[in-house]
Amino acid sequence: MRATVMYAAGDVRIEDVPDPKIEEPTDAVIRVTRACICGSDLWPYKTLEPSDGARVMGHEAIGVVEEAGGDVRIFKVGDVVVMPFAFSDGTCRFCEEGLQTECIHGGFFGNPDVPGAQTEAVRVPQADGTLYALPVGEEDELIPSLLTLSDVMGTGHHAAVVAKVSPGKSVAVVGDGAVGLCGVIAAKRLGAEQIIIMGRHDDRVALAREFGATDVVSERGPEAVERVKTLTGGYGVDAVLECVGLAQSMETAIEIARPGGAVGRVGVPQHDSIPGAQTSFYGNIAIGGGPAPVRAYIDDLLPDVLEGTIEPGRVFDRVVDLDGVPDGYRAMNERESIKVLVKP
Amino acid sequence: MRATVMYAAGDVRIEDVPDPKIEEPTDAVIRVTRACICGSDLWPYKTLEPSDGARVMGHEAIGVVEEAGGDVRIFKVGDVVVMPFAFSDGTCRFCEEGLQTECIHGGFFGNPDVPGAQTEAVRVPQADGTLYALPVGEEDELIPSLLTLSDVMGTGHHAAVVAKVSPGKSVAVVGDGAVGLCGVIAAKRLGAEQIIIMGRHDDRVALAREFGATDVVSERGPEAVERVKTLTGGYGVDAVLECVGLAQSMETAIEIARPGGAVGRVGVPQHDSIPGAQTSFYGNIAIGGGPAPVRAYIDDLLPDVLEGTIEPGRVFDRVVDLDGVPDGYRAMNERESIKVLVKP
Repeated sequence: MRATVMYAAGDVRIEDVPDPKIEEPTDAVIRVTRACICGSDLWPYKTLEPSDGARVMGHEAIGVVEEAGGDVRIFKVGDVVVMPFAFSDGTCRFCEEGLQTECIHGGFFGNPDVPGAQTEAVRVPQADGTLYALPVGEEDELIPSLLTLSDVMGTGHHAAVVAKVSPGKSVAVVGDGAVGLCGVIAAKRLGAEQIIIMGRHDDRVALAREFGATDVVSERGPEAVERVKTLTGGYGVDAVLECVGLAQSMETAIEIARPGGAVGRVGVPQHDSIPGAQTSFYGNIAIGGGPAPVRAYIDDLLPDVLEGTIEPGRVFDRVVDLDGVPDGYRAMNERESIKVLVKP
Repeated sequence: MRATVMYAAGDVRIEDVPDPKIEEPTDAVIRVTRACICGSDLWPYKTLEPSDGARVMGHEAIGVVEEAGGDVRIFKVGDVVVMPFAFSDGTCRFCEEGLQTECIHGGFFGNPDVPGAQTEAVRVPQADGTLYALPVGEEDELIPSLLTLSDVMGTGHHAAVVAKVSPGKSVAVVGDGAVGLCGVIAAKRLGAEQIIIMGRHDDRVALAREFGATDVVSERGPEAVERVKTLTGGYGVDAVLECVGLAQSMETAIEIARPGGAVGRVGVPQHDSIPGAQTSFYGNIAIGGGPAPVRAYIDDLLPDVLEGTIEPGRVFDRVVDLDGVPDGYRAMNERESIKVLVKP
């Protein structure tokens, strides 16, 4: 089959690779009907060393079950499913807590060990615990929004949950990528009264406003902090959604939180230590987050997508086939596209 | 009056200073009947530069109201009160949330601007919002335990609250100083099932066991992490109370938290950034804490002290008069004493 293989920074190729097959009786193989490129795919796109090993990319997908291992009980051939970016057994202590990204027998797609989903088909370990059946056909008009439940919408929601967004709260979203935009949706959905989007791309900021952002801060660093404080009576916001992952964005996130506020971080950190140890301490600011247990959040978010209450699929502003994937990486990396949907 | 003045690292003197007086109508002056030396006083004791400015030390006290400003409504001359380490107006948005250490009109005792309480008397700004009346006489046998409500017991409790200790949880307490020991009391009081004290001083560890610690880890660094994981089925503890404030102790705290666990930090951080940005992210570990709003916690903790359910006053293992304070600093700094009580 054909697949997206990344060899090194900037080197993404579409190649023939062996078809995935059942390796464990708990595996399923799904035919990928939709995949996408994630902001987190841009980190290796910028930095991957050839010595890191080539990888079949992609960790977000909707597909149709093509084959199920002997121990797969819930899914059968032909089911339309969404595949979260992490696989999980669904039965361990962490899965039972709704923290599937910490599953004892789990892991992530799109690395040298577990090939990803920017392909024609993908092997899904722990299929029963990982996949989620969708009550729609594979070409339903809601598919783009449903696809975001595999990562980006659940990730924005995780940031909001960890940052303790609740009715009436003030929220700042650091980063205007697709996760940040879904963070705006999540904050609005959880009842936030003030939602400040921090970004500088006109198209993204415009979409953020449509999703519910009430204010825009396009400055960075100390000027951004100043602006957020001015917008919040001098104290900062109750909740910050950190959707970038750089030391500087994390520093800003901590500095714009009000005393007693919280930062939910979902941007994959590119730094080894969290800045602002003093600021966060003296402000009693809570810092949390990590890989979002999107599998757990589908229960909450799916009804809203099906009812059309939220439309996270609007973050996709470009559709490509597999041949278009390398240029999709380029377009996202150059901020020409917010998020690229892939029809293999 | 006589007071404890720190001029530089290791240079603590008992000197005559002007008597405190009412400066604002919201002030009270209390005659200090008990004060103490705090683990956090040891940071300037190790590092204070002469150019930082001399300071009247001490931020924990029980005393008797000697004079009250014209706007003080709640307290009157003769009241026996406990003085939390931070003053607070009791009416701002943060005080109303129970976060008095973030009070808009608040601050801390024992710095060049606001003289401290290792003295014969102390001026208390925002007296109505700061002080807490005690229902006992000034020489009651419960006074040592009541004195801990000014800081150390409330601080250990804050670490436990932030680390989300609740019935059945596993807890590790990093640091066997007085705050760590109070953290053990707090964890036990909140229903923790397993309480691991991490320390290497026999007397402190023995007291921790009496307070409810179930396990002792005396290793440090990677060996300590290994030991805690072994004691917790391989995953780490639900809640970590960081009661030291060094980068290394913070790193250990993060590494011994289980996936989805929480770290409550109350050790005054001596570092600019929090280590373990990757470990805490991939583990979805929450990090919170800061100066404890001990004023808010007195409501919860006072009944238990009065009933004798908890005995945090047992952390005091030495009593000195004012002349004995400099040697008290030395003794605590050399780990010869856990915590020194001062009878001015």
